[in-house]
Amino acid sequence: MNAPPNASVGLVTPQTLHFDEPLALSCGRTLPGYDLVFETYGTLNAEASNAVLICHALSGHHHAAGYHDEGDRKPGWWDAHIGPGKSIDTERFFVVSLNNLGGCHGSTGPCSINPATGKPWGPDFPMMTVDDWVESQARLADRLGIQRFAAVVGGSLGGMQALRWSLAYPARIANALVIAATPKLTAQNIAFNEVARQAIRSDPDFHDGWYTAHRTVPRRGLKLARMVGHITYLSEVAMGSKFGRDLRSDDFNFDYGVEFQVESYLRYQGDAFSTSFDANTYLLMTKALDYFDPAASCGGDLAAALAPASCPFLVVSFTTDWRFPPARSKELVDALIRANKAVSYVNIDSPHGHDAFLLPEPRYRAVFAGFMQRIAAELEGY
Amino acid sequence: MNAPPNASVGLVTPQTLHFDEPLALSCGRTLPGYDLVFETYGTLNAEASNAVLICHALSGHHHAAGYHDEGDRKPGWWDAHIGPGKSIDTERFFVVSLNNLGGCHGSTGPCSINPATGKPWGPDFPMMTVDDWVESQARLADRLGIQRFAAVVGGSLGGMQALRWSLAYPARIANALVIAATPKLTAQNIAFNEVARQAIRSDPDFHDGWYTAHRTVPRRGLKLARMVGHITYLSEVAMGSKFGRDLRSDDFNFDYGVEFQVESYLRYQGDAFSTSFDANTYLLMTKALDYFDPAASCGGDLAAALAPASCPFLVVSFTTDWRFPPARSKELVDALIRANKAVSYVNIDSPHGHDAFLLPEPRYRAVFAGFMQRIAAELEGY
Repeated sequence: MNAPPNASVGLVTPQTLHFDEPLALSCGRTLPGYDLVFETYGTLNAEASNAVLICHALSGHHHAAGYHDEGDRKPGWWDAHIGPGKSIDTERFFVVSLNNLGGCHGSTGPCSINPATGKPWGPDFPMMTVDDWVESQARLADRLGIQRFAAVVGGSLGGMQALRWSLAYPARIANALVIAATPKLTAQNIAFNEVARQAIRSDPDFHDGWYTAHRTVPRRGLKLARMVGHITYLSEVAMGSKFGRDLRSDDFNFDYGVEFQVESYLRYQGDAFSTSFDANTYLLMTKALDYFDPAASCGGDLAAALAPASCPFLVVSFTTDWRFPPARSKELVDALIRANKAVSYVNIDSPHGHDAFLLPEPRYRAVFAGFMQRIAAELEGY
Repeated sequence: MNAPPNASVGLVTPQTLHFDEPLALSCGRTLPGYDLVFETYGTLNAEASNAVLICHALSGHHHAAGYHDEGDRKPGWWDAHIGPGKSIDTERFFVVSLNNLGGCHGSTGPCSINPATGKPWGPDFPMMTVDDWVESQARLADRLGIQRFAAVVGGSLGGMQALRWSLAYPARIANALVIAATPKLTAQNIAFNEVARQAIRSDPDFHDGWYTAHRTVPRRGLKLARMVGHITYLSEVAMGSKFGRDLRSDDFNFDYGVEFQVESYLRYQGDAFSTSFDANTYLLMTKALDYFDPAASCGGDLAAALAPASCPFLVVSFTTDWRFPPARSKELVDALIRANKAVSYVNIDSPHGHDAFLLPEPRYRAVFAGFMQRIAAELEGY
């Protein structure tokens, strides 16, 4: 909990496993053999009981902690919480972090070769759901010799995967950490996703998803999608204190160049993303968010849908998160309580909006680390 | 206040006035002669003391009430509040509603012919500010023989114009009604505007604003801009109760067609707008929003900036408006009070978000009508 700021798992190397057994998907199609790329941090104990699965969010990937080489400017995306002495203590846990199917960071996805055609899947890659991801993660666990995860952990879309694990594989998950998530998207959430999708799909360089064959990249669409996304990741107050109405130069230019700092920030974020992320993957990830709704199979009764779960839950929300506000976490907590599950819930004061789940806010770290320390202590027989 | 629902000013015909005197603009440029298109409802009294100016918002225009012809499906945009017996009672007031400069509904704007080139202004049309609009509105008042407006009224960007009137022409405005507005945009507001602008400007059919010469229309960009806008006009709760997670068909299609009702709604709104609104006008209107900040000239001290005002104010906000939330109206109200101005403030309970200012919510109508009735009674010597 009081890890030095520079505590790190150090250099890490991604691994890839190939899976031959076809995967039947929620959409009705079947994915033939596929690859999953992942990283591990820490050491699996002799009983294989100390494994923790990290599930990533919309634009995430397997590189959650440490560095790929010594020249890396930034560590993995959840380095604030994974490492020696950190919330997920790699001295005690064996951490598995994968890139989900449909991703664009090494696991089989739209950029991979479709064995049936010998060409990239592109838009023909099947639509994925959270349920499909959990299924593929369970197979990864099988291959790694992990019968039961000490914890499945995720923020945002990752939290939905942790929740799904508790329902699909109650015997294989000892604890679920559902952070900055929601049991289902609202109409407004779907609306924002739809704007992002329309931005990408209406980009003339998108070519119905066949941009690779056309040697184009729908950069404009990806940039817009990311700009919209960023507004929803940051709280209004965080944006206000970070940028306010500050101008780039001394006075207005009265043109459409950058005038306010916030414009500069958004354009930069959008541009960076548009050259590094795959458009078909982005579309597919937003759809997985839209589809997630475990209560739907129980006529909307979330408590009934949660009946299969048997593990304790930690649910965390952040006060200024307006993408998945505290009310959405409370909806989950209330349903867990109605369903007689063990749940701890914390609403963390943070000015940072949805992005707070990535950051090392002290109370968040204390809660996160405390919950994980209890798990470690039980494993270690204290 | 208890006007029959079908009370209407009936058929109205827009008028156009040409102005020869050049208009010096905030941006440093000068607009040569220009046209303003406007409508009037009701009768100007002998003292010309019962005139009410309506200022429109981002995508508004002069057609605020009544019908243009008998086949019209919809009346003007503020018909809920302008008409015989309505909030702005046309039996008592003479209402003037114009299309602002830079607009695309008849007043001089980017679609008009630039006398210097004989071609449409397009992106060469000068950037406009709220201050410029008020200046042009004052000249319109001169031509109509209106020395002093009984009230200047506006919602959203229109409310900013009413506020500016109180500062620029304190002797020419007897009352200011500032509805669902803000004394300045936040970083998040600017961010949403910037996404809309980038959507339009990155559309290959935009051609740096010269789309008319290229015989194209940046429909994709306009559609996206409107979709983003609509999300901010509706409250999360209104979107939720209107659409929820309702599907268009019985089950998921697992494709990128319309699956959720909210997607259908947004696409429809975006498509309709993209064929009816001018892109250069939209850009210019969003910039006018961004620039508005009367406190800037007083080092950010809004109360100091309000010193010139002498009229009573009615400030109205709506509980679920997250575009310009009640806190922004309260900021204005607090500054008015610090500046020793007469201000009435009402925060109306409404589920409809920013759009509530267009709707006839009963308490809103009662407050709006009550304030206007007091003005009418004073004019009429009660």
